[in-house]
Amino acid sequence: MLLDVLNYAGIAIFAVSGAMVGVRKNFDLWGILTVGVFTGVGGGILRDLLLGIVPPTSIVHWPNITIASVAAASAVLLHPMYARLHRPVLTLDAVGMGVFAASGAATALDHHVGWFGATLIGITTAIGGGVIRDVLSGEVPLLLQQSDLYAVPAMLGALTVGVLGAAEVAQWVALTCGALLATALRLASLRFKWRLPTAPRRH
Amino acid sequence: MLLDVLNYAGIAIFAVSGAMVGVRKNFDLWGILTVGVFTGVGGGILRDLLLGIVPPTSIVHWPNITIASVAAASAVLLHPMYARLHRPVLTLDAVGMGVFAASGAATALDHHVGWFGATLIGITTAIGGGVIRDVLSGEVPLLLQQSDLYAVPAMLGALTVGVLGAAEVAQWVALTCGALLATALRLASLRFKWRLPTAPRRH
Amino acid sequence: MLLDVLNYAGIAIFAVSGAMVGVRKNFDLWGILTVGVFTGVGGGILRDLLLGIVPPTSIVHWPNITIASVAAASAVLLHPMYARLHRPVLTLDAVGMGVFAASGAATALDHHVGWFGATLIGITTAIGGGVIRDVLSGEVPLLLQQSDLYAVPAMLGALTVGVLGAAEVAQWVALTCGALLATALRLASLRFKWRLPTAPRRH
Repeated sequence: MLLDVLNYAGIAIFAVSGAMVGVRKNFDLWGILTVGVFTGVGGGILRDLLLGIVPPTSIVHWPNITIASVAAASAVLLHPMYARLHRPVLTLDAVGMGVFAASGAATALDHHVGWFGATLIGITTAIGGGVIRDVLSGEVPLLLQQSDLYAVPAMLGALTVGVLGAAEVAQWVALTCGALLATALRLASLRFKWRLPTAPRRH
Repeated sequence: MLLDVLNYAGIAIFAVSGAMVGVRKNFDLWGILTVGVFTGVGGGILRDLLLGIVPPTSIVHWPNITIASVAAASAVLLHPMYARLHRPVLTLDAVGMGVFAASGAATALDHHVGWFGATLIGITTAIGGGVIRDVLSGEVPLLLQQSDLYAVPAMLGALTVGVLGAAEVAQWVALTCGALLATALRLASLRFKWRLPTAPRRH
Repeated sequence: MLLDVLNYAGIAIFAVSGAMVGVRKNFDLWGILTVGVFTGVGGGILRDLLLGIVPPTSIVHWPNITIASVAAASAVLLHPMYARLHRPVLTLDAVGMGVFAASGAATALDHHVGWFGATLIGITTAIGGGVIRDVLSGEVPLLLQQSDLYAVPAMLGALTVGVLGAAEVAQWVALTCGALLATALRLASLRFKWRLPTAPRRH
């Protein structure tokens, strides 16, 4: 139940982030909705395809697309406000990322994938939507370029769920630990400006 | 039978549109064929992956790839003619889009997907090839940028098939209504220059 | 056994080629690893999705991702050396391509796909990683632009496996012939600068 609410929140937040890119790029209304919806539900659809859940949940379970559409549409009207709310949006995005990393890994465990595969599928769920958003917008995925930590917290959150799940800890405990860890690490990396190095160069 | 012919026509038309982009971008022969074939059969492959039809029809049913290859190859030789035939090509493209939207939705209904999911899968089938073409060509998908209507007619055509199908109307009636509606709306939007707005901006 | 070793070699080589692009584009450590890993295992994941092998082998079989990660990480440290080793890397890349084309087609035959579909899936396995690498890096896929032969050798290698397999030749013979043919054709095309034409233009 809590997981459902958080999942919907994650979809809505990612849909807004996708739609904001569409607004900035001056896409038409449909383009904005399309980028927004794909960003919101894209990670989950990739997760489902990798696990053989077909049709993917977002295709047959109407609330997902509906929530993503409403959230993306809100960005069309409210984008100046969302742009001012940069910091709260980043915080919400960290929550969405944590929830998706943990719930993706838990879904994989439910489908008899081991902890290793579950970690990979958790990462994919957390970052898939953002990568789709950037590829559709003709950008190199932000994930590859930015030097603040995004995928590393997702990985550690998903790994936590995978390992706790393999150790037969109750699912809600594993989910909570994984989502909190990923979100906290992401927020800390923003707060303290943690950076990953690039490759060493000889000049 | 009529559906098969229309489907092959749709594949051929989309393959030509993909190959024309490859010609314009000065790809080599193989690059032109690749973009053309992916544009022709890409929407159907996405549809099949989302529905769990594996291997996808286009992989195991040879006419699809063969028709797409021949159509794309024809663009290598005939591209100056096709470029002059801009208007007829746009009309054929509208027919292909309508057929794919309707047949994608009908295939989803056949796989026990409800009207909502069938609509989403119909849209994906109709627009998937064009999005793949643009991503492979390093372009922001035309679909997101152009302000004339493309995906909205596809959505309404797929929705028609989904709703009529769920109401147990005979499949050929639903297919015909959906494909005609999508094609007619697309042609009307070209003829009367209907436009979708972009997001409002404050200057 | 030999096939396994060659397959791991192919994954490692492609992972290095992906990571080198990440280094050149100044991605951070995680970005370099991500592009590298996706390039290494992406073709195999596409193959598995098309064949309905879910979760894909690379998700559940840990050596694939581990080898890809180590190879990509090595590029972070050793990229100046790899850049000097341009010619050996091209040769290894030809071997990786040949192995993937042949093993992709053989996997498809194992899943009761005919020779035609097996050829298509062999091509996809061989070129998928490179296309993912280029799309993620914001480049038009090299495959479409370069005029030296890459996909044609992959196609002929996969076709060889498909036809020999359909003729019930022993799998290891078909695999060896297909991989050798694809690799040899690729190396010959580099050595003798074979080129595919672009579309004829009127000036």
